[in-house]
Amino acid sequence: MANRPLVTLTTDFGLADPYAAAMKGVILKSCPDAEIVDISHQVPSHNILSGAFILANAAPFFPPNTVHLVVVDPGVGTDRAILVAQFGDQIYVFPDNGIITFIKESYPLQNMVEIKDFGLLGIEGASGTFHGRDVFAPVVGYIFSGKPISHLGSVPQHYTLLDLPQPRSSDEEMAGRVIHVDHFGNLITNISRQHFPSHWKDPKAALEVYCQDQHVGPIRTAYGQVEPGRPLAVFNSMNLLELAVNRGRFCDAFDVGDGAEVTIRRPEEAK
Amino acid sequence: MANRPLVTLTTDFGLADPYAAAMKGVILKSCPDAEIVDISHQVPSHNILSGAFILANAAPFFPPNTVHLVVVDPGVGTDRAILVAQFGDQIYVFPDNGIITFIKESYPLQNMVEIKDFGLLGIEGASGTFHGRDVFAPVVGYIFSGKPISHLGSVPQHYTLLDLPQPRSSDEEMAGRVIHVDHFGNLITNISRQHFPSHWKDPKAALEVYCQDQHVGPIRTAYGQVEPGRPLAVFNSMNLLELAVNRGRFCDAFDVGDGAEVTIRRPEEAK
Amino acid sequence: MANRPLVTLTTDFGLADPYAAAMKGVILKSCPDAEIVDISHQVPSHNILSGAFILANAAPFFPPNTVHLVVVDPGVGTDRAILVAQFGDQIYVFPDNGIITFIKESYPLQNMVEIKDFGLLGIEGASGTFHGRDVFAPVVGYIFSGKPISHLGSVPQHYTLLDLPQPRSSDEEMAGRVIHVDHFGNLITNISRQHFPSHWKDPKAALEVYCQDQHVGPIRTAYGQVEPGRPLAVFNSMNLLELAVNRGRFCDAFDVGDGAEVTIRRPEEAK
Repeated sequence: MANRPLVTLTTDFGLADPYAAAMKGVILKSCPDAEIVDISHQVPSHNILSGAFILANAAPFFPPNTVHLVVVDPGVGTDRAILVAQFGDQIYVFPDNGIITFIKESYPLQNMVEIKDFGLLGIEGASGTFHGRDVFAPVVGYIFSGKPISHLGSVPQHYTLLDLPQPRSSDEEMAGRVIHVDHFGNLITNISRQHFPSHWKDPKAALEVYCQDQHVGPIRTAYGQVEPGRPLAVFNSMNLLELAVNRGRFCDAFDVGDGAEVTIRRPEEAK
Repeated sequence: MANRPLVTLTTDFGLADPYAAAMKGVILKSCPDAEIVDISHQVPSHNILSGAFILANAAPFFPPNTVHLVVVDPGVGTDRAILVAQFGDQIYVFPDNGIITFIKESYPLQNMVEIKDFGLLGIEGASGTFHGRDVFAPVVGYIFSGKPISHLGSVPQHYTLLDLPQPRSSDEEMAGRVIHVDHFGNLITNISRQHFPSHWKDPKAALEVYCQDQHVGPIRTAYGQVEPGRPLAVFNSMNLLELAVNRGRFCDAFDVGDGAEVTIRRPEEAK
Repeated sequence: MANRPLVTLTTDFGLADPYAAAMKGVILKSCPDAEIVDISHQVPSHNILSGAFILANAAPFFPPNTVHLVVVDPGVGTDRAILVAQFGDQIYVFPDNGIITFIKESYPLQNMVEIKDFGLLGIEGASGTFHGRDVFAPVVGYIFSGKPISHLGSVPQHYTLLDLPQPRSSDEEMAGRVIHVDHFGNLITNISRQHFPSHWKDPKAALEVYCQDQHVGPIRTAYGQVEPGRPLAVFNSMNLLELAVNRGRFCDAFDVGDGAEVTIRRPEEAK
């Protein structure tokens, strides 16, 4: 266990309504020493892919044994399972809808349980619309009291993963898709450094990036390597290919967004 | 007193400006061990009814003796009173403008004082525009130092409550109003479970919900009980009748919002 | 050092993306007892003047020795310096782009170092796009471990300050500019109380405020001193002249914004 019980929240609740705060109140009742950190409450409503992406690029940076409550849960109140799982050194509590997909790609599953014994959590009469408050929050107190997670239920037979688009590559080009548009208007693709064919990693291999057939340019290492207002491609802090405009908004300048095709090409002369 | 001094903030300050953080700085100076949790800083500007609703659906979930600072305060700098009151097991510090209305409906008043002795709080020269920072924040240190709240002033002769719209019912129907549109586009009404005529609680009493005379359907227990894109009515986690579209936005689909009329009817054959 | 290691964040990251939370995870790994408070993550993208203003009106209210991480950093990954400096009793970690300007105007510089020894911070292979997570966050652990800041690098020869617009005054009028439009639609100007010619401070000196030649009225001390919907001028909680509409939005009512000219005039008869 960590020194302080650390809890994060990733939801699509927004910040105006009382929902996130009600969860925090219940967490603090269930675990008075909990330190609660918001990952995001602005996952687009019901958008599991987006929630999965945001979770995977924040949660793994926390100290070991942090408990991450993930409540992007359009199936709340139906018979969808609620899972508790450790991937790497982090603990996740999440609805079984695929939101764990990116985490699972990068961190080994240590153990997983489907919550079945709600009585152990002290839950009586959960609402049918707000399991974040009525089910997920009390799990925090249970976990940090040191009780075994395995007692909460049984190992699920299977769990849901999203069918993610994968980049494809030939000898001449790699093609991927935009999977996230961030606050800065930067486009983040599913092309990671490790997808690169090994002979492309040669820094002398001049590469050119295109987005929906519009030319972006070669791959840079910082936004400031082009003039303000000019576009660039860069492997970002997530090791994913990102398209940006220095001090601008790529999504607006190129009028593209989620799902747009991004290709990396080797000009004839570079082969 | 709680183990840790817990403080929440409910304001209409938004999150971009320095206002909420300046309050937090002063709170931490006045009470270095305070744990501060945001309920919301996105109450619509100057909207007391909305602030009252958000407060009432988050604050009561916190551990006993949490201090809730409520700064939706268009009358700042005028002679409106600042009140400190305990309702149920929670402590509220708020301007006397009705923002305590929903709390007062559900939790018994234990005691109340109007702050008059600003010197006791160590306040000299509060601004006329930002009592959140200059008056409310220092109250936290005073309360958690264990000093008696009663010394801060005197019991007010009266305090302000909003004149809330009440649902009306006949033998054939109940009619209420939308009092909040949430982040998901769900409409929350002033019709609570306890408003129901007892003979309507019979689960065999087929009930149909309408919004501005558009048909919504029977009352469900989870969003997922209708197909994605379809509307439903449900008693939500606040025990209030809520209109939603599964994985969609009711307010947009039905083009309705705050104040819309919602009726529950018993079809002729069900009587 | 303060009792608890206090850290604040001021960024243009927004709240939807994983960026702010990834920083917090790294801060908590580097300093497990850190208490993290958001000043703002909604500084307009790449807007250093706006970030400087928000920082200066929140950070100084925190307990002494709070560490303020400031990541409005369009030059990330270039050779712009990262500075650690104490102004007054607060510690700031910030890119050398002028974001410290308003702080420097009001608080004495105690000491400053340009970070050069990234190895001391345990940093290997920072990304070129996210120094908030990879460089700024680890500084927190270094500082709160009590190690000397001076070991991190050397005193910079110079550091960047913004060229702020200054109000100008004659015997008949003072003219300044709007430097911030807040969440309420209030306009905040660069005219402070101390800019006032001494003979104007005479309360009998009837003064009239204009915005882009539209009449606003005399200087008040609270929003509620005019009827709802009516405009007013007030010296606000930052001691800056602010234009507001009681329970309304000045920026919309007068169709003005950042950079608008605001003048204070003494009518002929008042001289």
